[in-house]
Amino acid sequence: MKILVKLQLLFTLMMTQSMAQNFSIAIHGGAGNLLPKNFSEEREATYRAALDSALTIGYEMLQDSASATDVCEAVVNYLENNPLFNAGRGSVFNAEGQHEMDASIMDGKTLNTGAVAGVSLIKNPVSLARLVLDSSEHVFLSGPGAETFGKSHGAATVSAEYFHNERRYRQWEKANKKSVIKLDHDGDADMEEKKHGTVGVAVMDVFGNLAAATSTGGMTNKKYGRVGDSPIIGAGTYANNATCAVSCTGHGEYFIRAQAAFEAHALMQYKGQSLQDACNTAIYERVGVLGGEGGMIAVDSKGNVAYAFNTAGMYRGSVRQDGEKHIAIFKTNSD
Amino acid sequence: MKILVKLQLLFTLMMTQSMAQNFSIAIHGGAGNLLPKNFSEEREATYRAALDSALTIGYEMLQDSASATDVCEAVVNYLENNPLFNAGRGSVFNAEGQHEMDASIMDGKTLNTGAVAGVSLIKNPVSLARLVLDSSEHVFLSGPGAETFGKSHGAATVSAEYFHNERRYRQWEKANKKSVIKLDHDGDADMEEKKHGTVGVAVMDVFGNLAAATSTGGMTNKKYGRVGDSPIIGAGTYANNATCAVSCTGHGEYFIRAQAAFEAHALMQYKGQSLQDACNTAIYERVGVLGGEGGMIAVDSKGNVAYAFNTAGMYRGSVRQDGEKHIAIFKTNSD
Repeated sequence: MKILVKLQLLFTLMMTQSMAQNFSIAIHGGAGNLLPKNFSEEREATYRAALDSALTIGYEMLQDSASATDVCEAVVNYLENNPLFNAGRGSVFNAEGQHEMDASIMDGKTLNTGAVAGVSLIKNPVSLARLVLDSSEHVFLSGPGAETFGKSHGAATVSAEYFHNERRYRQWEKANKKSVIKLDHDGDADMEEKKHGTVGVAVMDVFGNLAAATSTGGMTNKKYGRVGDSPIIGAGTYANNATCAVSCTGHGEYFIRAQAAFEAHALMQYKGQSLQDACNTAIYERVGVLGGEGGMIAVDSKGNVAYAFNTAGMYRGSVRQDGEKHIAIFKTNSD
Repeated sequence: MKILVKLQLLFTLMMTQSMAQNFSIAIHGGAGNLLPKNFSEEREATYRAALDSALTIGYEMLQDSASATDVCEAVVNYLENNPLFNAGRGSVFNAEGQHEMDASIMDGKTLNTGAVAGVSLIKNPVSLARLVLDSSEHVFLSGPGAETFGKSHGAATVSAEYFHNERRYRQWEKANKKSVIKLDHDGDADMEEKKHGTVGVAVMDVFGNLAAATSTGGMTNKKYGRVGDSPIIGAGTYANNATCAVSCTGHGEYFIRAQAAFEAHALMQYKGQSLQDACNTAIYERVGVLGGEGGMIAVDSKGNVAYAFNTAGMYRGSVRQDGEKHIAIFKTNSD
């Protein structure tokens, strides 16, 4: 019996070791008309460095056995705080010259979710979505009510100036203006990408739990309290331990109509498609067929990573337990 | 050749005749703790009459070859205008003593959708959702922005008094108070049902096109700009000519997490489930497993009708081309 117990212990230890080595994280910073010719070496390097930093944050947390939900929040926070991306600090202006940000997060283990739409003075919309997940009987709050909830639950707030007075943002804007002048008739790639920009993260943690989160500053010049797919569970964000965790970016209206994130899950669960096939089907045969452009990143419960997009490019990256980072902006041979 | 052409014409005529005879409509007016003992004969008759009137509107329009989307809008309009139901005129008060209404509509042929959340002074929220479907580049508008859009596109507006000063509503309230006094310790069934009340319609028209729509006054005393499932495509409403049209009612948070409406579609499309099986799975094995209560009504592309609910009752009804109406409130042997 003693030997059996020892063997069992050893087995448990081995399983724990093995579990501790298996995780994955995929991220995106928006999809759009991203063409190599519109990127100076410096600009490309700046974006790649930001994606690298985001992955490092996630990788280190996952090595320390952080939960998928915590990792999603922390990595989206980094992307929200980085003015390169259309979320949090880098959010675009709506038609009234204000910011209306949306975010959502989903825990694939419990299928708990939190989402917020149309918040203006919350520093990190995804953290407000997380507060909704953790501390509200509701799952989706919008507008001033969502901000009232956030303030009463300790969400960090900022003044409107936070979104456009930051030195780094102005530097970037200046650099960007220079590159715009160089652009040809294909138009302003950066403005195009920002128009529907979004950041998102999908994670499998060492416990095999999945989570996904998405955050956006919305569409430039958006009107009428428009809500896109980012705060919509099933459209812009979905996670389910049984299948996958997904975050989308692109022309949100089409992702809502196509139920893009949940569709990837359904194709895996009911049709037995692989993660990559499910993402391809959702983007090309659902969103794309309707006329929508954009992309998604995803991880599955085996730790596989997938990207799919029908735009010229998508800021994206991933890393698994081996620490080897994959970072890309433009289409590659494997896309 | 002439005979062939004549035969073809005859065939087309027969097909048109046959098409003109096939349609179906299913409706609901909310699900909840609806027990026979809490209904006086008069109260039950009042609700049944309202459901009957709603079905008659839909039946007559469908006989006249109206489109599924038009029928959805018109029948939801009737239910919104009837103070018996928690939508439009009968909407409940939020925590600030105001009304915040949500609605959505989806055309199963084009997969076009329109949705609005948090509107206060729009007479018929589903018609505003329809305006979004028809006349906006967006699919989901919220709050004052949604109302601004509505006003600029001719949506009928009303004053706040519309929602609680109407004679018929006061009569009903008075009658209801009487019946409340008769209630035992099981509590105020009407208030319970209104808490998550919703109205919804699913239609297959004579052209074989599907559509669904949902409208709600939200939860009594709801706070923080809470958004439920009614305006969320995939959660409270979904329609796809390939499978089914669905409208949900109940504790919206669970319907969002379970993606209830789209789940019914996915189960039909990818698992080959029948309409009734798909609805049962969505309500019992998805919404119910999470702890959620409510129900859904649906029609499929063959004109079948299904109801599923895990509450004591659901105001519901349906009629097909034969004109035989089915109307029910409580659980029956076939549920």
